[in-house]
Amino acid sequence: MKISGKHWRSLWFDEAHASLIVIDQTKLPHLVCTKSLDNFHEVALAIKDMVIRGAPLIGVAGAYGIVLALIEDPNDIFLENAFQELLETRPTAINLKWALKLIYANIRELPLDRRVEKAKELADLIAEKDVMINKSIANFGSELLKRLAQRRPKNRIDSTFNILTHCNAGWLATIDWGTALAPIYMAHRAGLNIHVWVDETRPRNQGAKLTSFELENEGIPHTLIVDNAAGYLMQNGKVDAVIVGADRITRSGDVCNKIGTYLKALSARDNHLPFLVAAPIATIDWSLESGIDEIPIEVRSPNEITQIEGLLLNSQRENKIEKLLIAMDGVNAFNPAFDITPSELVTNFITEQGLIPNNLQGLSQFGKDFLIY
Amino acid sequence: MKISGKHWRSLWFDEAHASLIVIDQTKLPHLVCTKSLDNFHEVALAIKDMVIRGAPLIGVAGAYGIVLALIEDPNDIFLENAFQELLETRPTAINLKWALKLIYANIRELPLDRRVEKAKELADLIAEKDVMINKSIANFGSELLKRLAQRRPKNRIDSTFNILTHCNAGWLATIDWGTALAPIYMAHRAGLNIHVWVDETRPRNQGAKLTSFELENEGIPHTLIVDNAAGYLMQNGKVDAVIVGADRITRSGDVCNKIGTYLKALSARDNHLPFLVAAPIATIDWSLESGIDEIPIEVRSPNEITQIEGLLLNSQRENKIEKLLIAMDGVNAFNPAFDITPSELVTNFITEQGLIPNNLQGLSQFGKDFLIY
Repeated sequence: MKISGKHWRSLWFDEAHASLIVIDQTKLPHLVCTKSLDNFHEVALAIKDMVIRGAPLIGVAGAYGIVLALIEDPNDIFLENAFQELLETRPTAINLKWALKLIYANIRELPLDRRVEKAKELADLIAEKDVMINKSIANFGSELLKRLAQRRPKNRIDSTFNILTHCNAGWLATIDWGTALAPIYMAHRAGLNIHVWVDETRPRNQGAKLTSFELENEGIPHTLIVDNAAGYLMQNGKVDAVIVGADRITRSGDVCNKIGTYLKALSARDNHLPFLVAAPIATIDWSLESGIDEIPIEVRSPNEITQIEGLLLNSQRENKIEKLLIAMDGVNAFNPAFDITPSELVTNFITEQGLIPNNLQGLSQFGKDFLIY
Repeated sequence: MKISGKHWRSLWFDEAHASLIVIDQTKLPHLVCTKSLDNFHEVALAIKDMVIRGAPLIGVAGAYGIVLALIEDPNDIFLENAFQELLETRPTAINLKWALKLIYANIRELPLDRRVEKAKELADLIAEKDVMINKSIANFGSELLKRLAQRRPKNRIDSTFNILTHCNAGWLATIDWGTALAPIYMAHRAGLNIHVWVDETRPRNQGAKLTSFELENEGIPHTLIVDNAAGYLMQNGKVDAVIVGADRITRSGDVCNKIGTYLKALSARDNHLPFLVAAPIATIDWSLESGIDEIPIEVRSPNEITQIEGLLLNSQRENKIEKLLIAMDGVNAFNPAFDITPSELVTNFITEQGLIPNNLQGLSQFGKDFLIY
């Protein structure tokens, strides 16, 4: 996708310097700058500190982290350490675990001198597959959005189609296209008159910082709201559909996604609106049944709630980024990063294999085969 | 209630200087300072800019605004202008309208030289009544909380009773005690082991700034969360009851309160938790049936979403309050200040006359008599 008209990906591997180049997402939207990650520790730290984030993206980044580790030292012990360190950066999204395991399984039987090459080949493949998968999600999702737009009451059929999204599941959360935003990009290109309500998504404000940045650069009309406002908009007929991504989906269809997703899903149901989850099949964790009981929810630093970074006003020419304390000094804060939207609140899953209706049979028909490329 | 152990009210009238003294709530929790409002324009501006806020408090402030106007000029035209200017500051809460009309109705037939005295007498009465009403809400609500604590499953009866609250409906939103927080203060004094989850309440963060400040000063354990986190906490059994205030209640029991209240109510219902609304009977607007269709919802500046004030970190000794841009420069934002929680989501209303079960008959039994002191 584009930044200021130029095509970008969210990361790429620099062969000449053996480093992973990523867009530093903590600086957006105020500054567009890249960061060079030169070893697996730096990759792990970038994932932990959310320099890069988004379930699909951290999967790919983890894969390249293994490549960097093997370049440094292809031996089993070093590999094992790198695998563990990368795996432990973030516990909730399934993609990271999946990508790391895929690479690990494919290289541990190889002789040392063939490991780097094979790992690099697999990491590149995962990255390219991510783009293809998301483009496929874009196509299936775009058709669905167009059908939903046509099904509205006659007096609204030609009006703007209003989509609400939470967090950032755009191209910055993947390698390109995105998951939840991919259908929006595709439908917009196909001429559907779209407007997006962007939840700011506290505490890290991925909506305000990343989603609105993406939409602006793609020329899609959008409006920023606080997370509290979704209910008001739905009550007043200002939303036609909700679309979000997912960090993990259980085999029964429970969706783990950014904290607050569940509240929007409840509001969508109460207002009879479609609640769509766009995610690759690989997001499904077939080993789990209940989202609430079984998916580990990451708890992050309270500082993410009590402090905030931004551009100091009256200093915009200098691009001075500062940090403020926005709560009482020393207050206790609790910061869970994800919640569970129970299966029954999801209208449809949009995957690279097509739409899956919301039921256990729906998910099961795809089986585990799709986990293996 | 207390600040650093000393008893405070949120405002008081300074007879000697004929001015209204208020705690400047835009500076809390970083600075505790008062502001002197010397004429009705300054009162109107303080209400508009939320130097003072909270439905009951702006009702009382509006009443003193009329007193200041009459001191300046007791004539009909001046009075009429002051009434209109104060009324138009904030459209949603009923209390302001109610207090202004009460005073207006009682003085317009009086000779000019008796107006100030009568208005002052009524404003004082409204302020004192507010304290009495809230103390009564505290008593009825406290008994309810104790009963709810006893009704929990046996294995949790002796554990901490966890209450979630949204926005600030504490003593800072009233003259003293508060509405939603009043039962918590009273139950805490009566020995109930309470912990409060405090929604930060974007965009103006009244939870982070005011509610946690109040609870800290009263010595009640509490934890700050983002508004998105309520669902996660309820899903995981970490909430026993939700309690909020109200800016207006229709005769059918629809509750207008701070934006985001509706989402918490949906989550409470989905998790079978009591959702309690604490408010004076005067909050009921008997002229309205449907909250969504009939209550005017104030839309405030988009800057409240895209910019934020706080204490500059690394400069805490200087108490330097700065403002940051926390979204993309120039992004569209939409900022409705309230939403409607439909009657069926409310378990109980806590009023100064006692608990009202959630049904139309419940509200109607009190009739309009309670509007007249």
